This record gives sequence, C-alpha cells and structure tokens, in this order.
Amino acid sequence: MEKDMEKVLQKAEVLIEALPYIQRFNRKIIVVKYGGSAMSNEELQKNVIKDVTLLKLVGFKPIIVHGGGKEISRWVGKVGKESTFVNGLRVTDGETMEIAEMVLNKVNKDLVSMVQELGVKAVGISGKDGGLLQVEKKYSDGQDIGFVGEITEVNPKVLYDLLEKDFLPIVAPVGLDSQFQTYNINADDAACAIARAVKAEKLAFLTDIEGIYKDFREKKGFISRISAAQAEELISGGYVGGGMLPKLNNCTAAVRNGVSRVHILDGRIPHCLLLEIFTKQGIGTAIVADEEAEQN
Amino acid sequence: MEKDMEKVLQKAEVLIEALPYIQRFNRKIIVVKYGGSAMSNEELQKNVIKDVTLLKLVGFKPIIVHGGGKEISRWVGKVGKESTFVNGLRVTDGETMEIAEMVLNKVNKDLVSMVQELGVKAVGISGKDGGLLQVEKKYSDGQDIGFVGEITEVNPKVLYDLLEKDFLPIVAPVGLDSQFQTYNINADDAACAIARAVKAEKLAFLTDIEGIYKDFREKKGFISRISAAQAEELISGGYVGGGMLPKLNNCTAAVRNGVSRVHILDGRIPHCLLLEIFTKQGIGTAIVADEEAEQN
Amino acid sequence: MEKDMEKVLQKAEVLIEALPYIQRFNRKIIVVKYGGSAMSNEELQKNVIKDVTLLKLVGFKPIIVHGGGKEISRWVGKVGKESTFVNGLRVTDGETMEIAEMVLNKVNKDLVSMVQELGVKAVGISGKDGGLLQVEKKYSDGQDIGFVGEITEVNPKVLYDLLEKDFLPIVAPVGLDSQFQTYNINADDAACAIARAVKAEKLAFLTDIEGIYKDFREKKGFISRISAAQAEELISGGYVGGGMLPKLNNCTAAVRNGVSRVHILDGRIPHCLLLEIFTKQGIGTAIVADEEAEQN
Amino acid sequence: MEKDMEKVLQKAEVLIEALPYIQRFNRKIIVVKYGGSAMSNEELQKNVIKDVTLLKLVGFKPIIVHGGGKEISRWVGKVGKESTFVNGLRVTDGETMEIAEMVLNKVNKDLVSMVQELGVKAVGISGKDGGLLQVEKKYSDGQDIGFVGEITEVNPKVLYDLLEKDFLPIVAPVGLDSQFQTYNINADDAACAIARAVKAEKLAFLTDIEGIYKDFREKKGFISRISAAQAEELISGGYVGGGMLPKLNNCTAAVRNGVSRVHILDGRIPHCLLLEIFTKQGIGTAIVADEEAEQN
Amino acid sequence: MEKDMEKVLQKAEVLIEALPYIQRFNRKIIVVKYGGSAMSNEELQKNVIKDVTLLKLVGFKPIIVHGGGKEISRWVGKVGKESTFVNGLRVTDGETMEIAEMVLNKVNKDLVSMVQELGVKAVGISGKDGGLLQVEKKYSDGQDIGFVGEITEVNPKVLYDLLEKDFLPIVAPVGLDSQFQTYNINADDAACAIARAVKAEKLAFLTDIEGIYKDFREKKGFISRISAAQAEELISGGYVGGGMLPKLNNCTAAVRNGVSRVHILDGRIPHCLLLEIFTKQGIGTAIVADEEAEQN
Amino acid sequence: MEKDMEKVLQKAEVLIEALPYIQRFNRKIIVVKYGGSAMSNEELQKNVIKDVTLLKLVGFKPIIVHGGGKEISRWVGKVGKESTFVNGLRVTDGETMEIAEMVLNKVNKDLVSMVQELGVKAVGISGKDGGLLQVEKKYSDGQDIGFVGEITEVNPKVLYDLLEKDFLPIVAPVGLDSQFQTYNINADDAACAIARAVKAEKLAFLTDIEGIYKDFREKKGFISRISAAQAEELISGGYVGGGMLPKLNNCTAAVRNGVSRVHILDGRIPHCLLLEIFTKQGIGTAIVADEEAEQN
Repeated sequence: MEKDMEKVLQKAEVLIEALPYIQRFNRKIIVVKYGGSAMSNEELQKNVIKDVTLLKLVGFKPIIVHGGGKEISRWVGKVGKESTFVNGLRVTDGETMEIAEMVLNKVNKDLVSMVQELGVKAVGISGKDGGLLQVEKKYSDGQDIGFVGEITEVNPKVLYDLLEKDFLPIVAPVGLDSQFQTYNINADDAACAIARAVKAEKLAFLTDIEGIYKDFREKKGFISRISAAQAEELISGGYVGGGMLPKLNNCTAAVRNGVSRVHILDGRIPHCLLLEIFTKQGIGTAIVADEEAEQN
Repeated sequence: MEKDMEKVLQKAEVLIEALPYIQRFNRKIIVVKYGGSAMSNEELQKNVIKDVTLLKLVGFKPIIVHGGGKEISRWVGKVGKESTFVNGLRVTDGETMEIAEMVLNKVNKDLVSMVQELGVKAVGISGKDGGLLQVEKKYSDGQDIGFVGEITEVNPKVLYDLLEKDFLPIVAPVGLDSQFQTYNINADDAACAIARAVKAEKLAFLTDIEGIYKDFREKKGFISRISAAQAEELISGGYVGGGMLPKLNNCTAAVRNGVSRVHILDGRIPHCLLLEIFTKQGIGTAIVADEEAEQN
Repeated sequence: MEKDMEKVLQKAEVLIEALPYIQRFNRKIIVVKYGGSAMSNEELQKNVIKDVTLLKLVGFKPIIVHGGGKEISRWVGKVGKESTFVNGLRVTDGETMEIAEMVLNKVNKDLVSMVQELGVKAVGISGKDGGLLQVEKKYSDGQDIGFVGEITEVNPKVLYDLLEKDFLPIVAPVGLDSQFQTYNINADDAACAIARAVKAEKLAFLTDIEGIYKDFREKKGFISRISAAQAEELISGGYVGGGMLPKLNNCTAAVRNGVSRVHILDGRIPHCLLLEIFTKQGIGTAIVADEEAEQN
Repeated sequence: MEKDMEKVLQKAEVLIEALPYIQRFNRKIIVVKYGGSAMSNEELQKNVIKDVTLLKLVGFKPIIVHGGGKEISRWVGKVGKESTFVNGLRVTDGETMEIAEMVLNKVNKDLVSMVQELGVKAVGISGKDGGLLQVEKKYSDGQDIGFVGEITEVNPKVLYDLLEKDFLPIVAPVGLDSQFQTYNINADDAACAIARAVKAEKLAFLTDIEGIYKDFREKKGFISRISAAQAEELISGGYVGGGMLPKLNNCTAAVRNGVSRVHILDGRIPHCLLLEIFTKQGIGTAIVADEEAEQN
Repeated sequence: MEKDMEKVLQKAEVLIEALPYIQRFNRKIIVVKYGGSAMSNEELQKNVIKDVTLLKLVGFKPIIVHGGGKEISRWVGKVGKESTFVNGLRVTDGETMEIAEMVLNKVNKDLVSMVQELGVKAVGISGKDGGLLQVEKKYSDGQDIGFVGEITEVNPKVLYDLLEKDFLPIVAPVGLDSQFQTYNINADDAACAIARAVKAEKLAFLTDIEGIYKDFREKKGFISRISAAQAEELISGGYVGGGMLPKLNNCTAAVRNGVSRVHILDGRIPHCLLLEIFTKQGIGTAIVADEEAEQN
Repeated sequence: MEKDMEKVLQKAEVLIEALPYIQRFNRKIIVVKYGGSAMSNEELQKNVIKDVTLLKLVGFKPIIVHGGGKEISRWVGKVGKESTFVNGLRVTDGETMEIAEMVLNKVNKDLVSMVQELGVKAVGISGKDGGLLQVEKKYSDGQDIGFVGEITEVNPKVLYDLLEKDFLPIVAPVGLDSQFQTYNINADDAACAIARAVKAEKLAFLTDIEGIYKDFREKKGFISRISAAQAEELISGGYVGGGMLPKLNNCTAAVRNGVSRVHILDGRIPHCLLLEIFTKQGIGTAIVADEEAEQN
C-alpha cells in the first residue's frame, strides 16, 4: 500500500515536471522530421506517433515531415529496376519518380491512419497540395540525377489552414517545378524549409544516431547543446562527415532563419521526442541560436 | 470586319446564356465523379480539369472524386501479379490493396498538379484523411473478395474545412474500417456517399456512355431527364444491365437523399460538364427528384 | 446533329476562353461609368446591366457610377426652364439642382430595379450617403456656374460595407460641401475619384465613341493600348479635343493614382464590357501604367 | 452663483432621469415614421433629426421611414398636372409615379444630409434597394388608382446590414411588384410593415394630432395608453375616423405582430420623440399589447 | 547509465498513460472545490495550484471555487468577536459578513497570485461580479442565522467570458439577494451550483477524508465508484452523517443535473487531482450517473 | 399646463445639449479615479455610480479605479494597530498589507454591487488579476515604508477583455512585484498608469477640492483649463503643495503620455462627472495637451 502510494506520487511528479514545458510551447509549431530506423520498426513507429499525438493534445501544433526510407528501394526492386545513387542521392528517372511518389503517398496515408486511430484528426498532403513546395532541378556536382528537386519556395498557407482547423498535417516530400513537373525532395531539406517558412519553435530530426560528437569517427565528446556558430566550426574543421554533413548544414540554416531550436534525436530510443520536450535531462543534441548559447 | 464583330457578339451571347446558371449554382457544392475514358485520354483530361476549375472560379464549390482506372491493373501487372475479378469487383488481397492505394494517391496528386497549374488551389486527400470515409468489409454474393469496403459513414468536416479555406478538394476512394484497416472503395459509391453527406446541389458522373436509353441494348429511346421513380421502374423492368446498374442505383439513392440532381454525362465529349451546366441544351441524362419531374 | 455538336463545342470554347480573365479579376473592384447612348437605348441598357451583373456573379466586385444624361434637360424643360451651359457645363441654379438630384436619384433607382430583376442584390446611393463624396464649388474659367461641385474627398467606407455585404453599389454623382449644401458632380469625375479611392483594378467608361484615335478629327490611327505618358503627349500635342479632353485627363489621372487599367469602350456595341474583359481581342482603348506599357 | 449651481444640478437630474430608458432600449430597433407638419416646418425638422440622431448615439438603432408630404403635389403642379384623389389615396398614373419617386428620393437625401451634418453616418434607400419592399397593386373599393402598392413582403436584410455597419437607415416608401414595376406606398403602411419585419421595440408615428381621444370629434377623453384590444373596440365602435382610422389599424396590427409598443406623437411639439422616450411623463398615446395593458 | 535510461523510459510511460485522459477532457470544464486541509498546508496548497494550472495548460477549462476555512474565524477573533454556529453554519451578523467577505476576497487574490506565478492568467471574482450568484436568505431549521444565502440562480456569463479569453476563473462564494444585500454562501453549494450551471464535465471536491465508505463510522468498505441512486440509498439508510451528508447530497444533485462525474478526493494526498484525472488507478470516490454505473 | 410644457421642453434642451458630447466620446475609454469625500458620503456615492453607469450606457467605456480611504485606518484600528505615515504614505507592514488588501477588495465588491443594482454588468478586479499591475518596492526619501509599491508595468489585456465583453471594470490598487509579493499602490498612481496604458480619452479625479487655483493657499485665481506646460510652471513655481502636488504631477504625466485630457473635479458636487462631460459649462480644472491649449 505504502509502495503503491509512492509509485503514484512519482507519477504525479513526472506530470508536474512537464508543466513548464507544456506552458512554453503552448500553440507553438513543432516540425518533426520522421525517418530512418524509427520508421522501419513497428514498435518505434507507434511510439513516435503516440508522442506527436500527445504534443498535439497538450496544445502544441506539430507538423510531421516524413521520408520513404527503404520502402522506395523495395518497390523499385519489385518492378525489376535497380536503384542507382550519385553522392548518396538516388538517380531518379521518370519511372523511379512515379514509384517514389506512390510509395511516399502510401507511407503518408499509413501515418494518417495511425494518428486517426489515436483519436486525433490528421490530413496527409504532399508538397504539391496548395502549391506547398516549389522546386527546381538539382544537380549533384554538375551531374544530372533526374527528378531530384531543390526547394525554391514554400507556400505555407495550406499548413496554416490545416492547423487552424485543428488537423495534424503530415507532409510527403514531393514538389512541383515551375512547369508543374513532379520532383522528389530530400525529406531533411523539406522539413527544414517548412520549419523556416512557418517560423517553427522547434525542428526535431528523428535519426539513427545518438546526436553530435566532437569527434564523430571515434564517437567521443558527446555534445548536448551547440550554437549555430560552433556547429559551423565543427563542419569547417572537417569533423562532420557522411549523411550528417547536409543534416547539420540544414540545422544551422534553420536556426539562422527563425527556427528557435533544432534537435537531433536518437529515433531508436522509445519516446525520445517526449523525453526531449518534457523532461529536464533532454536527449540528443540541440542546435541553438548564437545569442541563446551565450546567455546560458 | 463585319464578320469579326458578328463572331464577337456570338461570344457575348454565350457568356450571357451562362448568366442564370452561374447565378443558380453560386456557392453550391457540385460533386464530380471522374473516371473512365475521360481519364485515360490526356486531351479529355485537360478539358475536365479546365471545366472543374472554371466552376470553382465562377463561384461554385466543386469536389472531385476519382477512380484509378486502368492504372491499377497496369501496376498490379508490373509487379508480376494477375488481377482477378468477381462480379466485376477486383479481388483485393493485401499486396493488391497496397498497389491500389499507391496508384490512387498518385492519380490524386496528378490531378492536384493539373488544377494548381490552372491557378486554382487544390488539396488531394483520401477517405482516410480526417476520417472522411469509414467502411466495413464488403462481400460479393457472400464471397470474400478481400479488402473491398462498403461505406458505413461519411465525416465531411475535412471537406467543409477545405472548401471554407477556398481549396478544391480531390478525393481518392480509399477508407478505413473500425480497426483502421485500409480498404478500396468503388469510386461511384464514394462520389455518391460524399454527395449525400454534403447535400450537394449536383452530382455529375463522367462516364463512357451517352446517357440512359429506354432500351440500353438497342440504344433506343435516349432519355434526357428522368425521375428517381421512373429510373427505378427501368431497373425493376430489367432494362438496365452491366456496369450501369449499380451506377443508376447510386443515382436514385443520391436523389432520394438530398442531392438535387444527378447527371450521367458522356465524358468523351470535350467540356461535357460545362455544356451541361452552362447551356440550355444540356447533355446526357439528368436524374431528378419525383416532385421536380412532375412540375415540369 | 454534327453541326449541333460543333456549335455546342464552340460555346464551350468561349467559356474556356473566359477562364483566365475570371481568375485574374476574382474579388477585384471594377468601376463602370455608365452614361451616354448606352443609357438612352433600352436594349443597350439591358445589355449593360446584364454584363455588370455577370461580372458580379463570377466573383468581381463591380460598382456602377452613372450620369443623368438627357433626362435632366427633359425635366428642366418640363417645369418651363431653359438649360444653359458654360464651357459644356450646365449652369446649375437652385431649382435646376433640385431637378438634377431628383432625376439622378430616379435613374439610380431604375438601375437598382434592373439589377434586382436579374437576381442580384443592389443598393443605390448618392455621394451624400455615408459622406461618400465631399465637394467644393467649381468655377468655369472663373465664372460662377452655380451648384457644380469639384470632388475634394472620397470616403469609401459605405462602398466597402456594401461590397462586403454582397451588394452591387450604384452611385449617383451628387455630393455635399462642407456646409452640407448639395452639388451636382460630373459623372466621369465621380467615377474616376471613386476608382482611385478604392484602388480599383479597372475603370471602364461606356462612351459614344469607338476609343481613341491618333488623329481624332480624321478618325485615323485607332489606338488599342496607350500608356499614361503617351496619352499625355497626345493631349499636349493638341490631338484631343471636345468632351474627350477631360475624360482622357481623368483616365491618366486614374492610372497615375493606383487604378491598374482604364478602358474607353464603345457603349453602342452590345456587351462591350463583357467582350473587353472576357475575350482576347479586347475592344476600345486601354490606358495603362507606363511600366506596364513598356513590359509588353 | 447659487442659482447657477441649482440650474446645473437640474441638468444632472434630467440626464439621470434618462438613465433607465437608455438602459432599456440599448441596441433595440426603433422605427420612426416621419411626415406631416414635423416635415414642413424647418425648425421642427431639425428637432426631429436631432432627436433621432441622439437615439442613435446613445445606443439605439433607429430607422426613419418618411413620406413626401406636400412636396409631391407641388412638383406634380409644376409640370402642369392636377392631383386627383380617391378615398384619400392619390391616383397615380405613370407620370405621377415618376414625379412621386423623384420627390421621395429627394426628401430622402435631404434627410441623409441633415443626419450627416450632425456627425452620424446615414444611408438613404428606397424599398427597391436590396428588394426591401415587395408590393402588389392596390385597389380602392375596387377602383383602379394606378401605381399604388400594397406591401406583400418585406426583405429586411439590407436594413440589418446597414445597422450592423452602424449606419442610420432612412427609407423612402417606394417598392417593386413581381414584374419589377415601381409603386408608391403609403408611408404609414411602410413604417408599420418594416417595424413588424424587424420586430422593432418601438414604432413611433410623428403626426399632426395630440394623440387619441375617446371621442375624436369632440377631442374629449385623451388616452395616454391603450391596449390593442381596446383600440379595436374604439374602431369598431365608430369612434375613429378620417386619416386616423388606417393609422390606428396599422398600430394595432404592429402590436399584434411583435412590435412591443406603438406611439402616436404630436410632431408639432419640439423633441416629442425624446420626451416620450426619456422622460417619465410620456407624450401622446401608446398602443401596447393586451397582456402588458393588463399588468399595469 | 542503464538505470538512468530505465528511469527516463518510465517517465515516458507516465506521460503516455495520460494521453487518453488529456484527449477525453480537451476543452471540457472542470470545477474544483478547494478547501479544508489542502488549503491550510502551504505545501499542499502549492500542489493543488500546480495541478489546476497543469489542467489548464493541457487544454481543460478549470474553474476554482474556494472557501475561507479557518481564516474567517481567525479574523473574527482579531476584532474581538466570537464565532457562533447553528447546526454547523456560522451565524453571520453584519460585521461578521463584512469580515467573511474581506477574508474570502483575500484568499481569492492569494490564489490568483499563485496561479499567475506559474505563468497562467487568472482572474478572481466573487458571486457578485457580473451577477454570478443570486441568493435568498437561508434559515437553519427555521432559525435566523443572519446573512447566510441559498443560491437561487446562477448567471454563468462572466465565467464563459473569462474562459473564452483564456483566463482561469477563481470564485469566492459570496452573492447578492434581490435587494443587492451581501450574503455568505457555503463553498460546496457554490461549487455544485456553478458546475450545474456550466454543465461541467467534472466536479472535484478536495476534502479531508479518503472518500466514501459503506460504513463511515467504522471506515469499512471503501467505495471507489458509486451511482447517484446508490449514494441516495446510503443516505436514506443513515450510513452518512456529519459534514459528509450535505456534500453527498450536493454530489448526487450535480450528477442528476448534467455534471458527468463528481469526485470526492483526499486533499491531503499531494497531487490527488492529477492522479485522479491522469492515471488508471484513480483516487477517492467517483459519483456517476446511474446509466453509466450500469454500463460498466 | 403651459408651465408643464415649458418644463418638459427644458428637459429636451438638456438632452440635446448632451448630444455632441455623447458623439465625441462614443466608445472612448474614460478612467475615473474615485476616492475621498465622494466615497464616504452614501448619497454622493450613489450619484457617482449613477454617473459612471450612465457613461457606460450611452456608449463610453468607463473604468473605475478606487482607493480605500478611511476604511483602511478603521480596520487597522479594529485589530488594535496604529497607523503610521511617512511623508503622507502609510507605513505598510505585513499585517497592515493584509488588512489593506482585504478592505480594498471589500470596497471593490461594494462598488460592483452598486453598479449591478443599476442594471449594468460589472467585474471587480485588483492589479493582481491577469497580471494587471506590476510593481517594485517604493522608498520614501530612502526610507523603508514596507509594502508600498511603485508601478513598473501595466498589462491591460484583462481590461480590454472585460470591456470587449461589455463589463464595467472596477480596479482595486493592489499589485504584485516580480517575486509575486503583494503591495499596496497609491490609487491616484494606479488610475494614472492605467489611463496611460489604455490611452484613455479622459482621466477624471474625483477630489475634495474645487480644482486648481493660481494661488492654492489663498484660493485665488481659479483655473478652468491649463496646459501641461503651464501646470509644470505652477509646480516649479512652488504654487502647488500638499496632496495636490503628486496628483498634479500625475495629471501632467498622463497628458504627456497619450491621455487626451485630465480633469480634477470636486467630488462633493453631486453628478460632477456628468456635468463636466455633458454640459457646456464644465466643472473643475482640465489639464490638456500643450498643442490643444494653444489652439483654443
């Protein structure tokens, strides 16, 4: 009985610990980039969706931007094609583009179902809807890699409308160029561009790493909090490589463009999003504005 | 010069002829079921989209509900499966459902692009978004045909929200059952259920036939206008068969449930939609309420 | 049958041709100055009203400003007075002012009836209502010509309120000075001042001429499109005379004060307004901003 | 000094006496029928306008309905016609109708000017605007008396819109029949029909009599307050005659149709309206609902 | 490290456990009666305020109704008076009423400060503000006990207005009778009357007992959940006595008048409110509608 | 009878005289500082409340800020304490602060009752509610005088919300510092700070003097109207002393910070507020902006 009461009181403490965070982010927009492992594992997937739904229910305005992950390669394989990559970017011919769009929209609607199942209203759109994402053709070191788009303009009206009507928007990273041709977009880029356009309070990347290390190769010197300027030093110092480089560039760009704070979270930890937002410890690495870094 | 002026005046007359129709349908909802030939031919496709866009611009509130047509079979074939049908309904196993949903969402976003290209804001959704279409498993003469759903409830809030925010909603006929399992839905059924739920002023089917004949087999006795009761007589008299039977049943059900008027149009005629709505002749067959039929 | 279908398809093309124009002027304000021949001929009058009503129905926000034309002289005559003019301006003593106001209000309400008959809600006001038009006494070359007013201020609130409530405002050119004395106003001046005050997208004059010629006297060198600067050159070159001079001055002033485009149309051509707005040819002369003239 | 202070305190008392009345009629609609002597005398006219303006400023929503009085006859005379009457109703041929409408609109705009001069926004309309008053031809004992209309329907939307936008609406009693033909309407009838349509709190007639007497001919037994039922008894008892009969019929009809209270005021007393509303004494005769009469 | 992560994950689970409750009570009104021990102990007081603030932040609409507790007696003593009670009700003469009102308002503003300190906007009112609580004199077994009021009418407009403007309303139980005389009100009665008037989703009493027992005297047979009917049986069976009797009567009355659920909580347990609402166990006794009791 | 009519007409004149003032202050905010004699005399108190209520009813937006006057000393005495003052400021230890707050809130609710009794909705708040008044500790010539606060920030949201919801706000001068400690505030300071924060049209002090004299000591040279600059000259010239000095400093500060006009009224004259606002004479002294003083 005593023990029960103790446990119960611990529960109360956790809820109370969340109080100031709920308060701070009330009605603020939080963009969540969702991809990687957190996407392939069914259990992790459920946790992510529960977390985002909770954010919605306690008064935040989350927006999910997702990738297609391994599903695209799987379906490209199904129709007997081979995936080729240049500098880590998928070479996207017409047929691959068709498949990529189909897969991304399928993932999109799967996420919609999962959110709806938890009793929250969601609408899944792509960058085509309401002209959300406008792109131009992207070249990789001058090489034509097909229908891979670079975002040139974000028209966030459709997102504001859906948020106003109390929907949770879920965005697939597909866009149109000025000729209304369809392009695939890197999901990190899309999340970052959207977060900047809506001046999000937070942009959170669910990744497959713990966060940023001073020395990435050796996994030494974990960094919990870093200013945009410091991140740029790390980059120019050559300490950041692989898929992390564009992501970190995105993060600093976001912070420099009105997003208050960017988080690189380990999507493999269940509820990493909730823990980052509602507890004192925090999880992963936060990239913050230079001024804020100085104040603390 | 004289000739030019005459031609110019004829133009004015056409515009003036449209005046009372624009007036009558101002701010009224019109559901357009779009499928069949009008979908496969690129030229016809452009015309349909132009027509619906014009309806939007002159003050109507159109909603497009579309099918996937031959594309689904094409993609099912691509992955090396064979399509099987029972009583004209596609047997939909898990993998087929995945492909069908992907194709429908792709068609959906293609239509969004085309509308956006004409300068009108569109948002493409499926019956999953905002819980629009709820279904239960459908059996064909008691036979299990897989994930084919029968609509049990329409929750039109997301449509009203999009219309209020001045978007043209485009709907793919996919829904969820109470266990949040995905189902394919017949597009005619979806269009009809939506038209009923939003009490549409008009429901227009773009089909591959001219309209209804008294004697379908012989294509004799074309009918321009028929009451719901008369349509039911035709059906019970055995004069209607093939794919037309469920469609006509849908039409009469719609008229009996608050939709003012249902049109069966020949989607192969360019701009059939505009001509039906804006000119005196009309095109195709109109199914009207019994009272209205009597009055005229 | 073939022929019928051809005719029907031509209709569709006319409607489709109107599409981009409907789009461009959606919710834009268009001020129509209505007077001259288009006013005296009953058939033309009906056409003008039909045109403006159509503009309203397809989403524009038209405002009609009208004159009193020959009716004022007719009623002045009826009470046994003679009309005298100085430099083309009616000398307006107290009794003439009373008659002019009565006639203008009568014309105003006649137009209201005609619009209402076409199913569109109209409200007829004069420059007195809501303090719309404030004037001061106007002199003609230093000569006292009675109660003829020059507009000193436009208070467009009543127009915005009526447009917001979905009425078509119809304005009679009568105003008050700072002593609340009634004055007659030239209808062209009133239309121009109102168009400027509400930053109208278009200001269209229905006149008794085809448009502007390089050489007015010889009716040589018809001009379809002219910049404000070019129009001013024409004027300073002495090529423009008669009633056209103040009108053209008004046009350039309007373009220089925020009205995007001014049209001088031949009100004797049926539906000249519709044809100008909804077809590629255009009709009459358009006065545009200098920058726009250069771009094209 | 003492005396001054006393006078000043009396002022305060008058204002305080008004307190409960201001409170009771806050945001209530009051229809004022304005005609007769109060209209011909310039001093009285100013007083009436001041009174109505004050009502507006302290939070009421007054609507003025006016007649044309002697002005119509004067202008009919000016064009050399003779006025003829049947049972007190002006025989209104086409030309007379034109003159009547012109005069009524002129009076209408004169009132607008006077209200505007006092710093309150007014809009003058007739029963044509926004389809306010719909009529059918009226016969006098079966005799054709021309374009004299009987109100068949009131569409008060334009009045509600103007009140919402904080204008004081001033209404000229002219309407349209179903063929959009113009008709003259008795101003008492118009005021009464409008008061009923907007469920006015009060309907006040400014007349040329002190109010109602038990014996009109002898001017004996002045009645300050009478129920609708008692008024009907007076009428059926033959005690009421002349122009008072239709007015009293109007009054009882108004009370029986949702107007809380009807006042017959002596328009020859300066500020009779204010005195009736803001002081304890009251002035003239009030016709009240039967229930209310019983309670007091 | 392992241990840390485990602890962190337990936190996540607590937050996730709260998810369905946050969802269920989103934008619902919860009335909290705050008094007794939870009020005298500073630590408990802080906890209660934290709890209510959290409810506000996660989207509920809490209203606090508080008593004055021992403070009133303390201040009565300070001025040298003695408190007398009849049947547990304080005999309230004029001076006592003055002191009681002053103390209640002081407690009220103290609570406002505490809520404001946590970053939530609060407004403290009494039943006088906006005419919230109207009372009549209450007699205790026919005995005059002074200015103790029984609620006759609740006018919840001021509460709705404050909630709409996002304030947390805090209510002191003082009201006015029809002569605008001030009366003291039992805080339980006030909470109950307010909960009924606003159709609260929940009404929670923070008390000094664990909840309801089948046998109160022996504290045997603790009841977690009881229907209104069962509660009434307990009462009529004589099992409920002391201060609990009127409280339980209040509870059943509330449930019978539109309040979905009433909770009797032990205010001595820290965060009892949070634990009741956000965890599966629940705490204290819930009184529910008879229908609901049957369903479960 | 003649006499009666004359009296009645005088009433009308008073009402008409108020017309332009009602017009000028329509929907303007007027802050009334209420204290001194006007507060202790029951008759005067009723008059003040009637006046403010009338202001509310005729369309103004009054806010009352009140002091506690002699009541605080009375209650301090009741509990056996002695009041001590330093430079006219009450030395406020913890217990005195408790009593002061209780008394101020009591006075606050008494005023609420009186306004409600007149049929106008009022809400009484203190500077704590909604964080209205933030203060810091005030020292008197370097001396610690306890919990006496100097206003550092006004957060007028709660006032705007109450005005929008049509309540008459009544404010007690109590505030919180950044540690959420309670402080007493001089009521004149509070009224002045609030008037500045809401950019009030008028700030009226009900005082115990006739107004300002050129020579206060001799009561010579009464000043009806003075500019801020002239008032500052009077002050620097040493002509103003006693309690008047801080008040006059407050007045000039208010005028220099957006309040159009400040009035020092003699609260001992019944209805001084009404007389000042609604009659030509005016009463007391008006402090106006320098520019305005020059214009007149």
